[in-house]
Amino acid sequence: MPKKGKFITLEGGEGVGKTTNVPFIKDYLQSQNIPVVITREPGGTGLAEKIRGLLLQGNDEEVTGHAEILLMFAARAQHLRHVIKPALAQGQWVLCDRFTDATYAYQGGGRGMPLETIGWLENFVQDGLRPDLTLLLDVPIETGMARAKNRAGQLDRFESEEFEFFNRVRQVYLDQARHYPGRIKIIKADQSLPDVQKAIVENLKPLLRWQ
Amino acid sequence: MPKKGKFITLEGGEGVGKTTNVPFIKDYLQSQNIPVVITREPGGTGLAEKIRGLLLQGNDEEVTGHAEILLMFAARAQHLRHVIKPALAQGQWVLCDRFTDATYAYQGGGRGMPLETIGWLENFVQDGLRPDLTLLLDVPIETGMARAKNRAGQLDRFESEEFEFFNRVRQVYLDQARHYPGRIKIIKADQSLPDVQKAIVENLKPLLRWQ
Repeated sequence: MPKKGKFITLEGGEGVGKTTNVPFIKDYLQSQNIPVVITREPGGTGLAEKIRGLLLQGNDEEVTGHAEILLMFAARAQHLRHVIKPALAQGQWVLCDRFTDATYAYQGGGRGMPLETIGWLENFVQDGLRPDLTLLLDVPIETGMARAKNRAGQLDRFESEEFEFFNRVRQVYLDQARHYPGRIKIIKADQSLPDVQKAIVENLKPLLRWQ
Repeated sequence: MPKKGKFITLEGGEGVGKTTNVPFIKDYLQSQNIPVVITREPGGTGLAEKIRGLLLQGNDEEVTGHAEILLMFAARAQHLRHVIKPALAQGQWVLCDRFTDATYAYQGGGRGMPLETIGWLENFVQDGLRPDLTLLLDVPIETGMARAKNRAGQLDRFESEEFEFFNRVRQVYLDQARHYPGRIKIIKADQSLPDVQKAIVENLKPLLRWQ
């Protein structure tokens, strides 16, 4: 039976550079002969992507906070069963663009869903499964929003929220990092890109040592 | 402010006669000058009907029990917010073809989801809201399946399940009725249709008295 793969998640608010760094991490791991699966949340399976569509498209009716978080975890259940767990069991590493820390940050911090509610759903859907490493790309809100708005394409429903919303999101991300210092590593993402990527590699190396 | 409406749910397994009796109950209430909204679960709003589609259509990937129950309650959250609660607040009565008792019966009894899990989600999504009256149409499994199979159209994913499944569904429905005898009334649905409908009217009358 192959050695179990590692589960890495990439987190952060708007405009922190996740899109740039996903392929960088993938290339780095492959250069170390590690097979890696790239995926994202919400989404990652056919049904989960359909649920993502329901969440991110404008809807004719207001999506309640309750429906939003239940849809998020429904998509996550499909993603874990059909993509993440099978890959890890085969010895592949999984790099996921956002995971449950994003639910704490956006639905908890941003929209005010109690964190204990999110914790109940996390235990229900994930059981004991948590990422082996979470890289939290962090920039001051002003920097992140300016970067997100310069990007091509329209802002989606989440991106259209206000500054205060993003500030609450960031604070919950930072609180999570304080609660789980062994798992969540804060990467200062307002440095130069080479410095950001150097910090990413330094945080990946301890995982490689145990390969 | 108008007097709050009553919330009536119609429950039961396959082939118990819900489709026949929904219009009967509607006509009866209207004959008593009661404004009534007819709806169904899963579904009842634009988004909830899309979620219903994800649940009932065959999917390329297996839908996990976790995803299924989270999708059910996500649809229910939308239905409560946009249809059921506004109607009741305006003094309309709501007649809903299946509600949370069906989740206990199908996802709990049928698919083995722990009933405490369903209870947690029920409290999360509904808070204190429960139906004022639930009419449980009950027939022996053999009768119900025979009726369902004679009906036009293909059996959907849920209807295709086996006899044993339906037996577990029925037992949880009957258990719920024993636990909530004030709210849930069992209607023997293998009587003649006039006798079934007489029993329905007898169970509706106490609600009318309090109008």
